[in-house]
Amino acid sequence: MSGIEDLKKLVIDFRDARDWKQFHNPKDCAISLSLEAAEVLEHFQWKSKDEIDEYLKDHKGDIGEELADVLYWVLLMSNDLDIDISEALKKKMEKNDKKYPVEKIRGKHTKYTKI
Amino acid sequence: MSGIEDLKKLVIDFRDARDWKQFHNPKDCAISLSLEAAEVLEHFQWKSKDEIDEYLKDHKGDIGEELADVLYWVLLMSNDLDIDISEALKKKMEKNDKKYPVEKIRGKHTKYTKI
Amino acid sequence: MSGIEDLKKLVIDFRDARDWKQFHNPKDCAISLSLEAAEVLEHFQWKSKDEIDEYLKDHKGDIGEELADVLYWVLLMSNDLDIDISEALKKKMEKNDKKYPVEKIRGKHTKYTKI
Amino acid sequence: MSGIEDLKKLVIDFRDARDWKQFHNPKDCAISLSLEAAEVLEHFQWKSKDEIDEYLKDHKGDIGEELADVLYWVLLMSNDLDIDISEALKKKMEKNDKKYPVEKIRGKHTKYTKI
Repeated sequence: MSGIEDLKKLVIDFRDARDWKQFHNPKDCAISLSLEAAEVLEHFQWKSKDEIDEYLKDHKGDIGEELADVLYWVLLMSNDLDIDISEALKKKMEKNDKKYPVEKIRGKHTKYTKI
Repeated sequence: MSGIEDLKKLVIDFRDARDWKQFHNPKDCAISLSLEAAEVLEHFQWKSKDEIDEYLKDHKGDIGEELADVLYWVLLMSNDLDIDISEALKKKMEKNDKKYPVEKIRGKHTKYTKI
Repeated sequence: MSGIEDLKKLVIDFRDARDWKQFHNPKDCAISLSLEAAEVLEHFQWKSKDEIDEYLKDHKGDIGEELADVLYWVLLMSNDLDIDISEALKKKMEKNDKKYPVEKIRGKHTKYTKI
Repeated sequence: MSGIEDLKKLVIDFRDARDWKQFHNPKDCAISLSLEAAEVLEHFQWKSKDEIDEYLKDHKGDIGEELADVLYWVLLMSNDLDIDISEALKKKMEKNDKKYPVEKIRGKHTKYTKI
């Protein structure tokens, strides 16, 4: 099991060893986040549910790499913007807990506004 | 400090309490990941470096929420596709370590292929 | 029938009447293009083929608006970067014609590299 | 000068010669649109305004190709969803004309809600 802080340290140490902080303005980092998310999506394009099941057998490693790239930017941006990402996730889940109350929404994928 | 596994449990418990796994096929989850990354990016659009610095003073919470939404999908997809995301990140960083050797790349933002 | 040039003029006249060219650097325009494409995608998320067919009955206008927003940025960027987008499309189709020869690829959705 | 209908015909003829309509469900087409927009964006990442000006000298053709790919999907989706994209753009511009009145907004890049 890894702590978020350990993973963040891994990412920041990698970056700082290369003296890349100078390039990491928030706008370009957010572009990277978005481009890496697109690379995750690309794996599932043009595939039916069955084709995806088949594809997953041989490509879990590749998809794991792309998800890792997304996580890299989440951790790096959190660090640079001084955001406690664990706390942010916990708070967001509490907010979603209220927004999507279990008793009203169980088994439905309706947007909150339509409940 | 939070462990990745704790945060993943938070996400999966939230989802399973609502019986939403039935909707979470990988293609639509990857679309969500991509749309949430776009929402992070939207915060930085049309802003100069100075305007972003100013904007960050009042909007760190909002950006934290969007980054949390991205992390939500990274953790949920990792869980559903049975990917150990901590391991995936560590392996990716080792790979990047070789791809971007410190001594050759320090202070440059060149792509590996151009070194 | 509308000419591409007429539509481009519509877009540029709208922009210039508001004196917005000063904000339209290529990076932020490309971000806009990407965000508007995400808004098109959002319409189809979490929907099965049948649900999409049903959804299309009432939402063609909305989707048309989002596609128009994407076209807006394609035309505006083409103008500002001095790219003849009709020519660019024709040339790209000729390139694709060679890359995906009809006799080899008919009915297959294989990538060229796998033929 | 090219008509939108001519370009749409080019795109649809290319597709139909390959019998690819069977793969072109709206969700996957919208994913393509989004991925191609990401490829446009990638050209401008990590570059300052000056670096972009320099880059444009040699890469106009490449960017034109990516914009053409985006246009390809706009035209193909418009065709398949039976959307008159010229009309959609004209209507959207009229709507924007009212939303962003010239006299109030000239030279400002404020969102309408903040006027």
